[in-house]
Amino acid sequence: MSANGDRYVVGVDFGTLSGRAVVVRVSDGAEVGSAVHEYRHGVIDDRLPETGAPLPGGWALQMPEDWRCVLREAVPKALSAAEVDPGSVIGIGTDFTACTVLPTLADGTPLNEVPGLADRPHAYPKLWKHHAAQRHADRINGLAQERGEPWLPRYGGRISAEWQFAKALQVLTEDPEIYARTERWIEAADWIIWQLCGVETRNVCTAGYKGIHSDGKYPSRDYLAALDPEFADFVETRLAHPLAPLGGLAGQLTPRAAAWTGLPAGIAVAVGNVDAHVTAAAANAVEPGQMLAIMGTSTCHVMVSDVLADVPGMCGVVRDGIVPGRWGYEAGQSGVGDIFGWFVEHCVPADYAEEAARRGIGVHEHLTALAAAQRPGQHGLVALDWHNGNRSVLVDHDLSGVIVGQTLATRPEDQYRALIEATAFGTRTIVSAFDTSGVPVTEFIVAGGLLKNQFLMQVYADVLRRPLSVIDSEQGPALGSAIHAAVAAGAYPDITVAAAAMGKVRRAVYQPDPASADVYDRLYAEYERLHDYFGRGGNDVLHRLHALRGEVRA
Amino acid sequence: MSANGDRYVVGVDFGTLSGRAVVVRVSDGAEVGSAVHEYRHGVIDDRLPETGAPLPGGWALQMPEDWRCVLREAVPKALSAAEVDPGSVIGIGTDFTACTVLPTLADGTPLNEVPGLADRPHAYPKLWKHHAAQRHADRINGLAQERGEPWLPRYGGRISAEWQFAKALQVLTEDPEIYARTERWIEAADWIIWQLCGVETRNVCTAGYKGIHSDGKYPSRDYLAALDPEFADFVETRLAHPLAPLGGLAGQLTPRAAAWTGLPAGIAVAVGNVDAHVTAAAANAVEPGQMLAIMGTSTCHVMVSDVLADVPGMCGVVRDGIVPGRWGYEAGQSGVGDIFGWFVEHCVPADYAEEAARRGIGVHEHLTALAAAQRPGQHGLVALDWHNGNRSVLVDHDLSGVIVGQTLATRPEDQYRALIEATAFGTRTIVSAFDTSGVPVTEFIVAGGLLKNQFLMQVYADVLRRPLSVIDSEQGPALGSAIHAAVAAGAYPDITVAAAAMGKVRRAVYQPDPASADVYDRLYAEYERLHDYFGRGGNDVLHRLHALRGEVRA
Repeated sequence: MSANGDRYVVGVDFGTLSGRAVVVRVSDGAEVGSAVHEYRHGVIDDRLPETGAPLPGGWALQMPEDWRCVLREAVPKALSAAEVDPGSVIGIGTDFTACTVLPTLADGTPLNEVPGLADRPHAYPKLWKHHAAQRHADRINGLAQERGEPWLPRYGGRISAEWQFAKALQVLTEDPEIYARTERWIEAADWIIWQLCGVETRNVCTAGYKGIHSDGKYPSRDYLAALDPEFADFVETRLAHPLAPLGGLAGQLTPRAAAWTGLPAGIAVAVGNVDAHVTAAAANAVEPGQMLAIMGTSTCHVMVSDVLADVPGMCGVVRDGIVPGRWGYEAGQSGVGDIFGWFVEHCVPADYAEEAARRGIGVHEHLTALAAAQRPGQHGLVALDWHNGNRSVLVDHDLSGVIVGQTLATRPEDQYRALIEATAFGTRTIVSAFDTSGVPVTEFIVAGGLLKNQFLMQVYADVLRRPLSVIDSEQGPALGSAIHAAVAAGAYPDITVAAAAMGKVRRAVYQPDPASADVYDRLYAEYERLHDYFGRGGNDVLHRLHALRGEVRA
Repeated sequence: MSANGDRYVVGVDFGTLSGRAVVVRVSDGAEVGSAVHEYRHGVIDDRLPETGAPLPGGWALQMPEDWRCVLREAVPKALSAAEVDPGSVIGIGTDFTACTVLPTLADGTPLNEVPGLADRPHAYPKLWKHHAAQRHADRINGLAQERGEPWLPRYGGRISAEWQFAKALQVLTEDPEIYARTERWIEAADWIIWQLCGVETRNVCTAGYKGIHSDGKYPSRDYLAALDPEFADFVETRLAHPLAPLGGLAGQLTPRAAAWTGLPAGIAVAVGNVDAHVTAAAANAVEPGQMLAIMGTSTCHVMVSDVLADVPGMCGVVRDGIVPGRWGYEAGQSGVGDIFGWFVEHCVPADYAEEAARRGIGVHEHLTALAAAQRPGQHGLVALDWHNGNRSVLVDHDLSGVIVGQTLATRPEDQYRALIEATAFGTRTIVSAFDTSGVPVTEFIVAGGLLKNQFLMQVYADVLRRPLSVIDSEQGPALGSAIHAAVAAGAYPDITVAAAAMGKVRRAVYQPDPASADVYDRLYAEYERLHDYFGRGGNDVLHRLHALRGEVRA
C-alpha cells in the first residue's frame, strides 16, 4: 500500500442545490480538503432563467453550466484547501442525483445551449424531482402490466414518473420538435463524465435503476411503439450505448477539463454513478447483507447480494448496479426528514420556537430533547409515515399520513416522537421484506444528514432490535466517488478492496435497548396492522381522499 | 298577556367559573338587564383554599360561599342594570352545572362549613369535572352489568364517574368519617334552591340524569350493599326525598335570601335545574323532535319525546327530565370546542398567530377564514373527534383522536377544518341514532358559544343536510331559568307555553348547500367506516395505546 501513500483522488458529489469536491488520500481514505459550490440557478421550478418563460406546476429543471461551474470552482478550491500537489492526483470520480436527465446533440451539447432553444423548457435537464410526467408513468405502467413486460417486477411493479422513460415521453408529447432534435437522452451522471473525458459513456447503475435496462436489454421496440409510434426507436436512437461497469475507467481527463479543475490532463476519470449507490463504498457497505440506509429528507436503502430475489416493493434490483458481479438492491422511504421538517414548519406553536431560541438550539433539537425524555409508548400515539407517499414496500405515491391516539393532552413532542418512530417502523418493514425474501440483512449501516440526531438513531436501533453501524464521514457520496476514482485509476483491483481500505464506518455504534425494543414490538404490531389496513386495501380511504382532493381541485 | 307586561322574573345561571343573573320581562322574554359574578375561588383543583392542603390529580372542588356571592352580587347588579322596580319581580329560577354535588348536614349546611372540617377535601362540593372517581364508576358499571340492573340501559350502558353515586362512593372509601357525617348528599342545583327558599327540594332532572333515578326509583338496597355494605342505606339516608317537577314551585324566597338579592321576600322560587336542560325552554325547543345542541367546549344534546326508545349511546332518558309529561333525552359529544382549543394552542405555528394579530383577530378566526375559503374535500383529510373520548354513541372515554390523509402540503387550516367537520360528523352520528331509533329529529336547534362561528354552523347544516335554527339569546341558560321562574310564579300554565312566549329562536338560519352536502355524504361515509373500525372493535388499537400509556406511566 505504500505506493498509495502520497497519491490522491478527487470525488465530486453533484447534489440538488450544490456540488461538493473532496480530495482523498488513496492509501487510507483520509479526506484532506473539500469545497462546496452552490449552483447559481439552483432548482429552476418557476420560470426559465434567460427568457423568464413561466413553468407549469411540478416542473424542476437545472442548468448544465451550473454543473460545469462545480468543476471550475469547487475542485480547485478543494485542491487548494488540501494543500496537495495536483500532480499527485491520479483520478477523479463523480456522483449525481438521479434520475436527472437531459437531451443533447450527438456531441453532448445540452439542447438548452443550442442557439434558438434557450426559451424551450423541454430543452433543459429535468431534475430528479421534476414531477410533471406522472401521466406518462401511468401509461408506461399500465401498458407494461397489460403486456406482462418481464422487467416490471424488477422495479416493484411500478416505474417512477421521475425516471428516464416517463420524462422522455413527456418531451415527445409536449414538444415534439425538441424531441426530434434530441440526439442523445442521457443521465446527468453520464453527461458530466462526457464533460470530463470527452467521450460518451453510460453507467450500468443509472441505466439499470432509472433507464429500465434489465437482463441485458431495454424495453422492446414493440412495447415502445405501443406507447407511441414516434417513441418506437427511442432506445436505438437516443439511449443505446455500451454500458460501463461501476469503478470502471470512463476515459482520461481532457486538457479542457484539466484547465477547469487544475488537475493533470490524462488522469483517470471513473464511470458515472448515483449519490446513494456510491455511498456504499464510502461506508464500506459492499458485502452481501450489508444494508446501507442514506437517511435525509427521504431514505434510500442499498444492498448487494449474490442472490436474485423478488423482494416485495423494492425500487429496483440491478445486476452490477452497486458493485460489479453482484445484484444491487434499492428500496426507499419517500418521506423521512421531510416529514419532520413539515411538522416543525407547520405544526409547532410559537412557544416551542421561543424556548428553542432561548436555549440557543433549533426547534428540531428542542423537540428531540423533549421527546427523548419520554419512555416508549408514553405518548399513546402511532403514525403512518406516508406524508409523501410510500416508496417501499407498498410502492404507492397516492397514500398519505395517518396519526392515531391524539388526546387533549397530546403535545408537539409527542407527535414529533411518533413521527420519528413511524419512519423507524417503515424501515423495519423494508428490512423484514428483505429478511423474508431470501436476501437477509446482516448489518444495518446509516449514512446521511439524520445521523446527527442521536435520539433518532437510538429509536431505529430499538425498533430494528439490532445494532446500527454509522458511516464515519460527513461527505459520504464524494468520498464514495473518490473511492471509485481510485479503482478506475488502478490503485485497487476493485471497489470492494478499495472500500475496505478507504471506506469509513463505525460498527455497532447504537445498541438496541431490550426493554424499549419490547415496547416497540408492540407498537410495530399496531403499525403493521394499520399499514395493511390503509395500504393494502382493508380501507381504501386514502385513495378515495386523494381522488376527491383531485376532483375538487379540478 | 297584558297582565305580564310589567312583570319580571330573574334567572341565575351557575357556571363553572362564574354566575350570571338576568332580569327578563315575563310577557315576551325581553332581557332587560344582566350581571356576572366570578367565583372568588373558581375551580379548586390544586390545594384547599383555607388550609392549603394539596389535592391529588383529577380533583375539582368548589366553595358554596362563592355560589351565595352570586346571589348577593350579580342579582342586585342585574336588577340595577335593568332599572326595574324589584317589586315587579315575581319569581326567581336557577340552573347549575351538573353533576356538581355536595355533602351537607340535615339543615343544608355544607360540611366544609362545619367547624373542624375545612381541612377535609371530601367535605367540599365536587364539581362536575372532578375526575378522581373513575374506579368507583367502573365498579358501579361492572356490578350493574353483572346483575343486569334495569336502569343501566337508560344511561347508554355506562354510569359516568362524574355522577352522584361514583362521587359518593369515593367519599365513603377515602374518608369514611366525612361520609358518616354526611346527612344529605345533594346536587348543587338543589342546594342553591334550599338557600333561596329555606326548604330542601330535589328536582327530577338531576335525580334522573345524574342520580340514577329511573322508573320511579333509585338503585336498590341490594345493589348498593353489593357495592359496599356501608353503602347499602345511601339512598334512604342521604338522597331520598320527594322529587319536584321542572317549572314547579320549590317555595317562597326567604327574608334572608331577599336581603341578599334585593328581591321581595315571598316571591316564587322555581325548582332547580341543569344548565343544558333549562336552555331548551330558552330556545323554545320543548316539542318532540326538536333537538337542542348546546355547543361549547363539549356539546350536549337534549330532546323531548312522547316515546320511550332505546337510543344507542345516549347519556340518559328521564321521564319529565326536560319538561313534565314527556321523556327527556340527553346525548353528548365529550370534545368539540375543546378540540379546536387544543389545536390552536398546541398545533399552530407562530406565523399564523402573527398574521392573526396583524389582522386584529384571534387565531380561531384566522384559521376559520382560511378554512372557509376551501371547498369540501379539498384538504384530503378525515378525522375522528375523540380527543376527549366519545360520549355518544360509543360511550367510551378511553378512545382518542385519529386523523388520516396528511401530506407534506397539509396546512393548519386544513387540519382545523377537518376537526370542525369531524365534530359535525359526530353530531350526524347522534342525530342518525335518534332518527333510526323511533325518536326522529325534526328540527335541529343550536345554542352555546360556538354559535358565533358562522362557518362552523354552515358546515353543520351541510353535514346534517338540514336547516339549523339558532337560539336568539346570548344567555340561554339564565333565560331558561327565568322562564322556569315565570312558570313557577304562575304567569304561564307550563314550560311549553312559557317557552313559546319567552323563548327566542331564529328558525332555519343556516340552509344546507346541496353540492357541499353531496361531498360531505362521501366524507361521512369515510368517517362512519373509521368510526366503526376504531370504535367498535374492528381494530382496538386506541384501547391498547391507552392501556400501554397507563402501563408506561405507572
